[in-house]
Amino acid sequence: MKRFTREHIDTFDYIFKINLINSLSGYKSANLIGSVSPEGIENIAVFSSVVHLGSTPPLLGFILRPTTVPRNTYENLKKTGVFTINHVSESIIEDAHHTSAKYSSLISEFEMTDLTSEYLGDFGAPFVAEAPVKIGMKYVDEIDIHYNQTKLVIGEIQFFEVEEEMLQEDGFLNLGRGEVATINGLDGYAVPSLFKRLEYQRPKQLI
Amino acid sequence: MKRFTREHIDTFDYIFKINLINSLSGYKSANLIGSVSPEGIENIAVFSSVVHLGSTPPLLGFILRPTTVPRNTYENLKKTGVFTINHVSESIIEDAHHTSAKYSSLISEFEMTDLTSEYLGDFGAPFVAEAPVKIGMKYVDEIDIHYNQTKLVIGEIQFFEVEEEMLQEDGFLNLGRGEVATINGLDGYAVPSLFKRLEYQRPKQLI
Repeated sequence: MKRFTREHIDTFDYIFKINLINSLSGYKSANLIGSVSPEGIENIAVFSSVVHLGSTPPLLGFILRPTTVPRNTYENLKKTGVFTINHVSESIIEDAHHTSAKYSSLISEFEMTDLTSEYLGDFGAPFVAEAPVKIGMKYVDEIDIHYNQTKLVIGEIQFFEVEEEMLQEDGFLNLGRGEVATINGLDGYAVPSLFKRLEYQRPKQLI
Repeated sequence: MKRFTREHIDTFDYIFKINLINSLSGYKSANLIGSVSPEGIENIAVFSSVVHLGSTPPLLGFILRPTTVPRNTYENLKKTGVFTINHVSESIIEDAHHTSAKYSSLISEFEMTDLTSEYLGDFGAPFVAEAPVKIGMKYVDEIDIHYNQTKLVIGEIQFFEVEEEMLQEDGFLNLGRGEVATINGLDGYAVPSLFKRLEYQRPKQLI
């Protein structure tokens, strides 16, 4: 094993540091967050920090990092109250990753990639037509993380669509069947297949 | 695509609901969090909500859900100020998953599984010897998510160890080389291989 102390970390070259520290939490979710400005300019941006917060009510959150992520997503969802979460699948990895380029808020990433904007029902934010999972979200809260000036943005699931072949009888969504990607570090993508499902665990009997 | 409205979600059978909503954020990190009580009883528990919060300072967080996760981890890290984050790899998936069983705080999951407790230097919390990535964490803050009575627990990386063959020249940690697992839903495990790394993205030139 190779050990890195805190002193090493603080003196790393910048690129080395962000590559390594961004890999340290393990695999991350790969999502495209869709939003639209009140003027109608659509935004789509890749995020790797979407996290499950609870099922009742159904809540997801994501981390907003002020210095590294364009704020268009945040400004839009604050103004319109809604956003979408779309899973990145194998066929759209390149275009999804390209949305990390810093475009002006006047330019839609939908125009600069082959990703297709789609509206479902009367929901007021754009989905990604190619995504195998599409979730309509209502903004409900945000929490400031004072320690490093980031925010946890919290949204409540309003409705969602999934590819039928991903859904199993007990509600389990087989992400592998949708060729859903996961992110390793800042720029690594993997497309896993399900290895195994394990049973609900109860304590072993002490002899 | 199959659509589920909010009314569907709220009337789902409980198991169906938690399986489906827990799958909706995409792939999740698979980590074992290690801690020890002031009385010396070690605890190790699987978490799927560890998230990268920032690199300067190097911060990771995780979600603590009061109703579903034993609170031993939280009580220990509050009392001792330290905990560890260890990656779940293919060979320890079953034992890692078993730590989700609800044992009394008087029983160490290390005794009930083949996972091996390991201390590194004078750090005051146990690591998992078998893990390909081991991170020593200092508790720094916690943030209440009032919307559903969960918490975001924030820790600062003090030092870490990684398997040498995982580390690339530019700091990228190839999780596939460590056979690191990712979690799908509540009980699905996958062990991905790196599919591709993509370049830092700059805006395309408008013609």
